[in-house]
Amino acid sequence: MNLLEEYNEKAIVLGLDINQPDFDYTHFKNIKCQLKIVDLLQQSEVENIIYQFQPEYILHLASYSSVAFSWKNPSASFANNTNIFLNLLEQIRKMKISCRILSVGSSEEYGNVTADKLPLHEDLELFPVSPYAVARVSQEMLSKVYVQGYGMDIVMTRSFNHIGPWQKEIFVIPSFAKKLCEMKKHGSERLMRTGDLSIVRDFVDVRDVVRAYYMLLHNGKSGEIYNICSGVGTSLNDMINTMSAILGIDVTCETEPSLVRPNDNQIIIGSNKKLVGHVGWERKISIEHSLKDIIDYWNSIV
Amino acid sequence: MNLLEEYNEKAIVLGLDINQPDFDYTHFKNIKCQLKIVDLLQQSEVENIIYQFQPEYILHLASYSSVAFSWKNPSASFANNTNIFLNLLEQIRKMKISCRILSVGSSEEYGNVTADKLPLHEDLELFPVSPYAVARVSQEMLSKVYVQGYGMDIVMTRSFNHIGPWQKEIFVIPSFAKKLCEMKKHGSERLMRTGDLSIVRDFVDVRDVVRAYYMLLHNGKSGEIYNICSGVGTSLNDMINTMSAILGIDVTCETEPSLVRPNDNQIIIGSNKKLVGHVGWERKISIEHSLKDIIDYWNSIV
Repeated sequence: MNLLEEYNEKAIVLGLDINQPDFDYTHFKNIKCQLKIVDLLQQSEVENIIYQFQPEYILHLASYSSVAFSWKNPSASFANNTNIFLNLLEQIRKMKISCRILSVGSSEEYGNVTADKLPLHEDLELFPVSPYAVARVSQEMLSKVYVQGYGMDIVMTRSFNHIGPWQKEIFVIPSFAKKLCEMKKHGSERLMRTGDLSIVRDFVDVRDVVRAYYMLLHNGKSGEIYNICSGVGTSLNDMINTMSAILGIDVTCETEPSLVRPNDNQIIIGSNKKLVGHVGWERKISIEHSLKDIIDYWNSIV
Repeated sequence: MNLLEEYNEKAIVLGLDINQPDFDYTHFKNIKCQLKIVDLLQQSEVENIIYQFQPEYILHLASYSSVAFSWKNPSASFANNTNIFLNLLEQIRKMKISCRILSVGSSEEYGNVTADKLPLHEDLELFPVSPYAVARVSQEMLSKVYVQGYGMDIVMTRSFNHIGPWQKEIFVIPSFAKKLCEMKKHGSERLMRTGDLSIVRDFVDVRDVVRAYYMLLHNGKSGEIYNICSGVGTSLNDMINTMSAILGIDVTCETEPSLVRPNDNQIIIGSNKKLVGHVGWERKISIEHSLKDIIDYWNSIV
């Protein structure tokens, strides 16, 4: 909504979430924003909402985005990703609402890849290795069937690792940022126990991601899949070093075996050629810029 | 169960179906057979049944196998294929039951294939084009995740077009067989309106399919996918000609445009090399043998 305001879009936004939002959504000038608390598994409720709102665009980000959770509860992960998306598609199809849907997927869909496949491009064969990844691939396959079989207007993404302020600390970068800010503030022991820090990921600032979604909703091609990524890999070790430098502290890291994930890929880097080529997206927020904002955010909290 | 009896297996079989079976299952000597009516979407019921029965083998054939139905009701098709399978896996995993599961998939998973890919082998990339096909691919991806991630013992199939007596007439071959038997019996007009008869499919007798399932449950490799097919393609036109010859009648066929399916593949032929190589399966029932049995069956009914 910040982005729509920035672009002077006069939009009416209806947000759906299962939880009450923990941010202010009433301060926009041009954006009329409502939020509804709804469980997307409740088909009839969703049907009513969609019917009343008659959306022109749907940005489908729901729902459970944790790979770790999907290992603990595969059925819930699957139902809250694939099934709610399928139900949404069905409502739009049956009501014959003419709208564009952005189906947000994940770099996790690529699964086990060998180094020679890097940077990952959208035409690669997928080898999902977690229940979460399977759910996202299923969502994507269903999207294609609805585009080809029913003529619906769906654009798909495979979004890589997001970072930015406000991200919850269950994710790796904010969890590091919070600990580093605490160390700085409380002068506590500067030893951090972590998982494998040598793994490399393609980090992209959430504000750049949101701009990509905006551009794809306007100019993406229906039925196409777009990587949303920076095209650059950074190790977790480098992320910690940059944040430590921003804070002006020295930190020693020690590997805690219980935090090392089994089956994790060593390096994931995506190609953003298609996104750049089709809609003219470019990364505007560097890793350093993101990490500075993230540190500022956590400094204001700890 | 006929096959288990034939092989002198002393097995206890528990069949689960949503409908009362329309065949006799009480006449076996060595097989103790029970059947329970259950909706596999009812998790707690399935949980009770599995817990009480403690299976050593599960042959998962459920549930909605119609591509046409999946276009009319994608959500139900998906829930009754992928979700019930996932629920079953979850119960087995949580109860730590040591059993082998045969996950039955479909040649539909291959989707749109070009002629240069024939005969289809298990390592090809999949391009599912119907909601049903997506559901089956999802089932397969979940199977792999449960094998690799949880160490479960699952063998997968992609079963091609089954034929045989007792098959319901919503399928193409029995629908033709029934009409031809009616023509012969009642001397009615020998003109048949059909869809596209030039399409070629890989037909395999259901008794050969069942034997493949039996062999895979015993000797298939966990985590592997097996085509179950004859390796030979036959056009629908040839199937009608063979059946007409068996009946000794001449039939004229006319294409009815409304019966021609959109997006249907012209030729589907599978490779059974892996099945033959790993478990020593061979086709025992020829197309002519199958069609003779099918005609005998329909002759006894019409």
